[in-house]
Amino acid sequence: MTTDKGAAPLTADRVMQRAEPQEFSRVLSSMCTEPHPTARAAAERFLATNPGDPGTYESVAALERTAVDLLGQVAGLRDPAGYVASGGTEANVQAVRIARNRAATRDPNVVAPASAHFSFRKAADVLGVELRTAPLAGYRADLEAVAELVDDDTVLVVGVAGSTEYGRVDPIPAMAEMASDAGALCHVDAAWGGFVLPFTDHDWDFSDAPVDTMTVDPHKMGQAAVPAGGLLTRGPELLDELAVDTPYLESTSQVTLTGTRSGAGVASAVAVMEELWPDGYEAEYRRSQANADWLAAELRSRGYDVVEPVLPLVAADLGDRIAALRERGWRLSPTEAGEARVVCMPHVTRAMLREFVADLDDLDDGRRR
Amino acid sequence: MTTDKGAAPLTADRVMQRAEPQEFSRVLSSMCTEPHPTARAAAERFLATNPGDPGTYESVAALERTAVDLLGQVAGLRDPAGYVASGGTEANVQAVRIARNRAATRDPNVVAPASAHFSFRKAADVLGVELRTAPLAGYRADLEAVAELVDDDTVLVVGVAGSTEYGRVDPIPAMAEMASDAGALCHVDAAWGGFVLPFTDHDWDFSDAPVDTMTVDPHKMGQAAVPAGGLLTRGPELLDELAVDTPYLESTSQVTLTGTRSGAGVASAVAVMEELWPDGYEAEYRRSQANADWLAAELRSRGYDVVEPVLPLVAADLGDRIAALRERGWRLSPTEAGEARVVCMPHVTRAMLREFVADLDDLDDGRRR
Repeated sequence: MTTDKGAAPLTADRVMQRAEPQEFSRVLSSMCTEPHPTARAAAERFLATNPGDPGTYESVAALERTAVDLLGQVAGLRDPAGYVASGGTEANVQAVRIARNRAATRDPNVVAPASAHFSFRKAADVLGVELRTAPLAGYRADLEAVAELVDDDTVLVVGVAGSTEYGRVDPIPAMAEMASDAGALCHVDAAWGGFVLPFTDHDWDFSDAPVDTMTVDPHKMGQAAVPAGGLLTRGPELLDELAVDTPYLESTSQVTLTGTRSGAGVASAVAVMEELWPDGYEAEYRRSQANADWLAAELRSRGYDVVEPVLPLVAADLGDRIAALRERGWRLSPTEAGEARVVCMPHVTRAMLREFVADLDDLDDGRRR
Repeated sequence: MTTDKGAAPLTADRVMQRAEPQEFSRVLSSMCTEPHPTARAAAERFLATNPGDPGTYESVAALERTAVDLLGQVAGLRDPAGYVASGGTEANVQAVRIARNRAATRDPNVVAPASAHFSFRKAADVLGVELRTAPLAGYRADLEAVAELVDDDTVLVVGVAGSTEYGRVDPIPAMAEMASDAGALCHVDAAWGGFVLPFTDHDWDFSDAPVDTMTVDPHKMGQAAVPAGGLLTRGPELLDELAVDTPYLESTSQVTLTGTRSGAGVASAVAVMEELWPDGYEAEYRRSQANADWLAAELRSRGYDVVEPVLPLVAADLGDRIAALRERGWRLSPTEAGEARVVCMPHVTRAMLREFVADLDDLDDGRRR
């Protein structure tokens, strides 16, 4: 019993009455965005469904199979296996789990470039595997450094296709070959990059290389509603490494890391992929890349050091200005090296970027005065 | 590049145009339910926010602290630590992870009753711990059996407060004492039961026993929108066992299993807890329990074996009728022993149950003809 044990009763002064969601008009560093209108509508319709219980919620379970098929199209894989995860972190953790579970070694390690997302550190702690991080060369995995770290206990080689800090793409085909030679799996983390890379010349997907598993998130550049991450595997055998028996559900096993899952995320992913793939996403990519190129040029013309935006993500050394820009409402976060990161997500418009540059100029004018 | 490599273009025949969400009018076995209207409204407002990035999405991060405080009130814990998880599975996995990480043993085991949710099997696989399941006595943990399994390598003793199959409550105080004596933690899985138990005489919460961690899910009996599970820990030190450093986010570490998370789940949990705690939940509990008691009596009067519903969950041996009832649209799933499970969630009305019993009678009339 707790009702009569302390805890003051709530009054009319409710937190929710005052709470306002974050507006996106000054959000620059997030890899999330406003869901596309068709994604929002689908999320709201399927809010009360649970694809984690496909025997009860059949229609959303069927939608999830469609989502995986569509993600396979995005990632160059016919007959994909996989599921809609809570996000890129779950998908990355599960990829490591697949690799660990199928391997015979008692002392498994995962080799990833230093640019790999911190979810791989989380995976290492959770799953009890050693994470070996290889130094970079020009913001990408250094193949020689990766090769030095791979040994008989390596169960997975991770390549990043659109890195979190600089939007760079690792040499995926060479890394997949290296993994294959070592008897390890190759995982590509395209959580953010997956919905822009199909419109570039990069080699990154299942058709470009013997990639085994991939993270590709509808709720980032795919414009689905959170939570809609994506895990794809080349064939169902790899996914089966995750199966845990499920009593009291009509289905007999579950491969997901979570149990109850969001039907809103699944439905929104299907809705927006059906709406935008491929032409709508291509148009969105071109707009975002043009914005990134514009911002990079503007910042360079002012003398700032800018890391070339090979994908729609600009990292620029703004010195000590990040705090002052945050005070003006800009949601800006730094790379580990200290550059400001502007991720040109769908909600980031040219007008927003003009305003941002104007604020930066204003700040510098103030300093010169 | 994938756009020009296979994958037929999508036509106007879109899956989403035909997809309909599951209606709840015949859903009997799910532990999910329709979100409360205030939860739905909050979920829709906060759909595009990410509490996983509190430096960018400050308002929903503040809401999460409120959610944890409210969950502490539900679970008899002042100054709780914790967070809004994707669901009970994540919360259970994380509780096992806390216990494993803080312990010195290289060969950790977790002792749980056979009634523990299958997410503990998932946790065991993911985290590399041994799961020891103790047989039951009268649908509850048998204390002697639990004691026999606990040893120096036991890092966690799990008690269930509202079991998935029969809604039973383990002897939590005795189990917590046993854990404490063994230098292990005690975790209570009140994922489903947490929002009804405060209105009963059961001893189950942080104020009843030296419980260390608890799963208590707003998105089950709490009527929040999925995904809104709850992990509570007695004090921040336990939660800190989960911390992983986070570059490129304004926050410096992350304790969650996932990364990007649903602001919809968090906001909906706060909204509905502020609306219903405690009086609204108590009224809901009394209505659900009365429905369970009514259904149990109706089934018994027809000669069916019924497991006494000590919480609002009826398990009854309907012989081979589950398949026929499913054909009539009832979403009904069996226990491992084969009984039909009717979980009296908020969407389960007396009228629904009358209809269900009438269908059962009709089925039996048909058999007698």
